[in-house]
Amino acid sequence: MSGPGPLSLNTVTVKERWGLADCIEGCARHGIPGLAPWRDVLQAMGTAAAARQIRDAGLRVTGLCRGGMFPATDAAGRAAAIEDNRRAIAEAQEIGAPCLVMVCGGLPPGSKDLPAARRMVEDGLAAILPEARAAGVTLAVEPLHPMTCADRSVVSTLGQALDLCEALGDGVGVALDVYHVWWDPALASQMRRAKGRIAAFHTCDWLVPTTDTVFDRGLPGDGVIDIPAIRAMAEEAGWAGGAEVEILSRRWWSRDPDDVLPLLKARHLAAC
Amino acid sequence: MSGPGPLSLNTVTVKERWGLADCIEGCARHGIPGLAPWRDVLQAMGTAAAARQIRDAGLRVTGLCRGGMFPATDAAGRAAAIEDNRRAIAEAQEIGAPCLVMVCGGLPPGSKDLPAARRMVEDGLAAILPEARAAGVTLAVEPLHPMTCADRSVVSTLGQALDLCEALGDGVGVALDVYHVWWDPALASQMRRAKGRIAAFHTCDWLVPTTDTVFDRGLPGDGVIDIPAIRAMAEEAGWAGGAEVEILSRRWWSRDPDDVLPLLKARHLAAC
Repeated sequence: MSGPGPLSLNTVTVKERWGLADCIEGCARHGIPGLAPWRDVLQAMGTAAAARQIRDAGLRVTGLCRGGMFPATDAAGRAAAIEDNRRAIAEAQEIGAPCLVMVCGGLPPGSKDLPAARRMVEDGLAAILPEARAAGVTLAVEPLHPMTCADRSVVSTLGQALDLCEALGDGVGVALDVYHVWWDPALASQMRRAKGRIAAFHTCDWLVPTTDTVFDRGLPGDGVIDIPAIRAMAEEAGWAGGAEVEILSRRWWSRDPDDVLPLLKARHLAAC
Repeated sequence: MSGPGPLSLNTVTVKERWGLADCIEGCARHGIPGLAPWRDVLQAMGTAAAARQIRDAGLRVTGLCRGGMFPATDAAGRAAAIEDNRRAIAEAQEIGAPCLVMVCGGLPPGSKDLPAARRMVEDGLAAILPEARAAGVTLAVEPLHPMTCADRSVVSTLGQALDLCEALGDGVGVALDVYHVWWDPALASQMRRAKGRIAAFHTCDWLVPTTDTVFDRGLPGDGVIDIPAIRAMAEEAGWAGGAEVEILSRRWWSRDPDDVLPLLKARHLAAC
């Protein structure tokens, strides 16, 4: 098997310490060739300035995090989400991101109607797809771990994300994060179905024990995920874009990013 | 839709406060007609004494929790697990439990080989199936929420549990806990496949936020699971055995069971 390809830093990995300008400089300083901003740090810096500085630093943008969050209690809330996603598509285009990572949203507050929330997601994606196609920005639907189904993503499996791809057609792909899919008994069969659909590949690790359902991810190699096996399936499905390391972790957020980035580089090579 | 059928108390719901004798008396006192012991309290009381007292109290045993935990680092560890499961089958038979709930086990310590662990589960089930059939005790494979895949159950979806049923044949069924399956986008289609295979039906609820991956379940009605919808699917698949309430919760364990049991009864009627 070949190596894991180029590394990209997802800015949430250092979110407590670095703004986007720091991330751009940090990637350049540490020899990390890719960057995937979240919208909060992008907007704080200003999209035009960020686009210029990323280009000047010679970094490749691997995605913008995140669009989605479609389900809402009423039509006005759903329309507002769709408008916000249109802005996200424009931002992704402006910084040269090939995809907008879609964290599609959980149940509306007070709702137990999961099928309805899932329809809202499909409707939301369909609504913004013309803008995404026009901008050349793939909507990368990210299945999130089922433990986030209530409050973050009613898209819970790769199979479900691929169903959305097939229903919606060109311009929709999947963002594959090993953390969210490693447990899936249908992973191997669905990865065969994912041919040509993978738009982003994210790494981190599942710790044992896991003490928080959102903010306790591990560095690649510190947990139980067989990342190279999943990468091999992704490559078999046509993915050749390297890996974006995205670690939401209170533990790692407390550390100096200038200490964390060399670790990320080492683990990218040793454990991915 | 008809009512939720008879209620059964899973003893883990009151584990910090009551032994099995307390549970038997408590069910009788509160008018709860069913009981599902865990092996720890069963063994502490003594299986013969427990069987007698349960019978004398007129309670219906809905299952014994739990067998499983098959994956192990070496052959000796796997053989020990199989022997322990044979003892569990004998205990289930002695107390008149129709099924042994199987929490099949996670990855062996230090392993990242999920396919191998899953094979160990299938091999373990196959090894004990003759004893289970002879005892008339169904092996109720419980798919556990994917967030427990590393350390508790590599059986993560209803579809996967049904694959095991089909591979192993008569004597194997599924234990369906709404907590573990509610998020599954394939739930409706797999429930159609589960016809005649459901051996246990467990209730509790998914809280938002969920602060612990194991010990933060809610009372039915306190979370986001549409329990009546899942019950309707189970009934469509032939289930007519009521519901066993199984709540692993540090919060509820701190309360007096004589206060909790009336709440369970009320929620069983109002939210299940």
